[in-house]
Amino acid sequence: MSPYKLFQYIDKLSEVEGKEVILRGWVQNKTGKGKLQFIQLRDGTGVCQCVLFRDNVSEEVFADAKTLTQESSLEIKGTVRKEDRAIGGYEIDVTGLKIYQISKDYPITPKEHGDAFLIEHRHLWLRSSRQHAIMRVRAAVIKAIRDFFDGNGFKLMDSPILTPSACEGTSTLFETKYFDLGSAYLSQSGQLYAEASAMSLGKVYTFGPTFRAERSKTRKHLTEFWMVEPEMAFFDINDDMDLAEDLVEYIVQYCLKTCQKEFNLLERDTTKLEKVKRPFHRMSYSNAVDWLVENNIPLKKKVDGQEVDILPFPWGEDFGTVQEEALMEQFEKPCIIHRYPSEIKAFYMKRDPDNSDVVLAMDMLGPEKAGEIIGGSQREDNIDLLLERIEKHNLPLEDFQWYLDLRRFGSVPHSGFGLGIERVVKWISGAAHIREVIPFPRMIYRIVP
Amino acid sequence: MSPYKLFQYIDKLSEVEGKEVILRGWVQNKTGKGKLQFIQLRDGTGVCQCVLFRDNVSEEVFADAKTLTQESSLEIKGTVRKEDRAIGGYEIDVTGLKIYQISKDYPITPKEHGDAFLIEHRHLWLRSSRQHAIMRVRAAVIKAIRDFFDGNGFKLMDSPILTPSACEGTSTLFETKYFDLGSAYLSQSGQLYAEASAMSLGKVYTFGPTFRAERSKTRKHLTEFWMVEPEMAFFDINDDMDLAEDLVEYIVQYCLKTCQKEFNLLERDTTKLEKVKRPFHRMSYSNAVDWLVENNIPLKKKVDGQEVDILPFPWGEDFGTVQEEALMEQFEKPCIIHRYPSEIKAFYMKRDPDNSDVVLAMDMLGPEKAGEIIGGSQREDNIDLLLERIEKHNLPLEDFQWYLDLRRFGSVPHSGFGLGIERVVKWISGAAHIREVIPFPRMIYRIVP
Repeated sequence: MSPYKLFQYIDKLSEVEGKEVILRGWVQNKTGKGKLQFIQLRDGTGVCQCVLFRDNVSEEVFADAKTLTQESSLEIKGTVRKEDRAIGGYEIDVTGLKIYQISKDYPITPKEHGDAFLIEHRHLWLRSSRQHAIMRVRAAVIKAIRDFFDGNGFKLMDSPILTPSACEGTSTLFETKYFDLGSAYLSQSGQLYAEASAMSLGKVYTFGPTFRAERSKTRKHLTEFWMVEPEMAFFDINDDMDLAEDLVEYIVQYCLKTCQKEFNLLERDTTKLEKVKRPFHRMSYSNAVDWLVENNIPLKKKVDGQEVDILPFPWGEDFGTVQEEALMEQFEKPCIIHRYPSEIKAFYMKRDPDNSDVVLAMDMLGPEKAGEIIGGSQREDNIDLLLERIEKHNLPLEDFQWYLDLRRFGSVPHSGFGLGIERVVKWISGAAHIREVIPFPRMIYRIVP
Repeated sequence: MSPYKLFQYIDKLSEVEGKEVILRGWVQNKTGKGKLQFIQLRDGTGVCQCVLFRDNVSEEVFADAKTLTQESSLEIKGTVRKEDRAIGGYEIDVTGLKIYQISKDYPITPKEHGDAFLIEHRHLWLRSSRQHAIMRVRAAVIKAIRDFFDGNGFKLMDSPILTPSACEGTSTLFETKYFDLGSAYLSQSGQLYAEASAMSLGKVYTFGPTFRAERSKTRKHLTEFWMVEPEMAFFDINDDMDLAEDLVEYIVQYCLKTCQKEFNLLERDTTKLEKVKRPFHRMSYSNAVDWLVENNIPLKKKVDGQEVDILPFPWGEDFGTVQEEALMEQFEKPCIIHRYPSEIKAFYMKRDPDNSDVVLAMDMLGPEKAGEIIGGSQREDNIDLLLERIEKHNLPLEDFQWYLDLRRFGSVPHSGFGLGIERVVKWISGAAHIREVIPFPRMIYRIVP
């Protein structure tokens, strides 16, 4: 056994009941009176109450313990005792103690702090129980996704981050100088590359950070966020929607299995998550518009700087938060909206053979105001139609030659989608703001720490 | 069962022996004479020989098959027959065939192509068997790494890519404008953030793309590459080295278990990989220098533009490829070199308490000219010593305030390392050049496709 396994982690205490162990961590809280002191020790895997009884330790140890402050670091030696009333079900009867450092004036006290203060101290805020729990849900969501794809014959094929051309305009792109080759741009999506990969390996996924230099100041926007994008040769839009449902069901059920402790701490109502089972709801864009019209949900539009309501909601306009939340209020499970107007969707989406006004696109909206968690489509596989769209969108043809090669040499029907990790973690964890669901959030007004 | 499971993948043919199946894929090669045609079909999971016998199919199908060219896309219907001489152990007796597209003038023919041509056509080159195999080894390496950490109590904590300051100078950094906040830089390492995460969650790892705007034109350098960086509270340098050995052993053994087909295709000598078992070799930097001196290995240094050999190798100089390869010739397993001169290592590394001329750093060198696959250290946990180093390195103190907080509030001994994915995949797969081990390589002279 390697020496790095010599000390014990709090989440494994059940395996060493009655034994003497060494724990290492930080003081979350400390109380005591008279002959007793109680240290709430956190070590990253959990929190454990450690009890010092004056008659059991040396005077020096008891005095040392009195000096401990919030976030002081230390090693504790003691015996593991089952205690049903304790946080993790176990307590430590302390026999020894070694202090690494007494922490002075730790900025984040148990009192309430403002959002701005917390985000400025993100490197310390991460130590709070609530942030712990959210980070663990995040790790579980990512593990579920990777297990799902790895277990279903998908190959990981990472798309590049540095890309040579501003395919759809530079306005929302981060730009950097690339040696003597001009500018490079940070990827907004790995999709086009994933399509090339799918023509090689059949079923692939790319999973990495993506970037949008958008001036959006909402609870749902980050400038740097993580996205998983599966892409599948020979999948049509229906296969694509089935896969999206399978994936989301798997993620939610995996989290329910592995994150109960975290959900308890976050006071997340898990009965709502338990309902996330296939089949989900599905609705065409046109049917969704009919519903909006019937229910008097307006389009919100800026006219001369003023927001006005337009009724009835006009077919052809994109949905915003107002429409999405109205539509989703009736559902407890996610709903896929499919077949959107061609005009509001990307150039690479395939026209519906039954109605060329719409494309074979699909967005999955989550319940509980989760918003759009997935966006995908069947891709245009006909080179002539694709060329027509590139021209219509005024895109630089030369930059797309390699992409067009995928339609020249063995073009096949294929589909894919992107799932935004932070949107999903926000939904599943119940976090109030997206800045809480990524370790170090990047927003238009925030790049430190 | 979802409709997207309706067709069969070649790697699952053993499960449907004797049954009629539908395969979808691309023509890798085609031969035939008289009443027989042989289609080598690839579908991303493998290659399968499909046999058309004129008497078994319609005249139309037989004629269609004759038109098939390399990389044409099609669907094949047929019966699965065990055939030990066939590539994957099975053949298909074709009964039907549907062509998606006849591919014309596919640029990459079975003849030899130059490196420049292949890399320019990377989106198509990925379809070759050799590139397939390397990409599968890459996916296996990454899965092994994630399984290892997830299975050993580590939490994934992604460090940010966009970072606010050029901590160690801007010369090798990609820079981008960040809204109204000035410049941001693409991360060269997630370590400093991982340290903050480790103070929260104990054992963490960050795994993402990292960027170096270096003008290095070697077989081992990319400007965009992936790195996994574990960081562990309460680990000292010895624990760190143990963990690094455990990890690398696990990766290699996992690949041996899951990538035999790929190693065969790549003609990789796996007996060499089988020897990669703990314990690895270890050697202090000073002992390594002694060995270089004894064996007359010179320092190569540019003097007035001319490369000269300096003998004996002077203590205090960093090792380059010449020294690394000379040292490693004697070993069949990786070797960790530890305790490097402070002067040539980063500011955050902890001085050796027994000898302040060296730091508790460690680099793992791979056998078979793999070069440095891991670099790590125990981190300086004393704030005064860290401040002294920051000053000595002329680093902007203000930018490090959040990092110094980790030493102000409950500082603990901690260690970590970074493992370069592409270096490891190159070594394990036996690929000749690092550009082959990432789907879309980025080098100083290459950002397309």
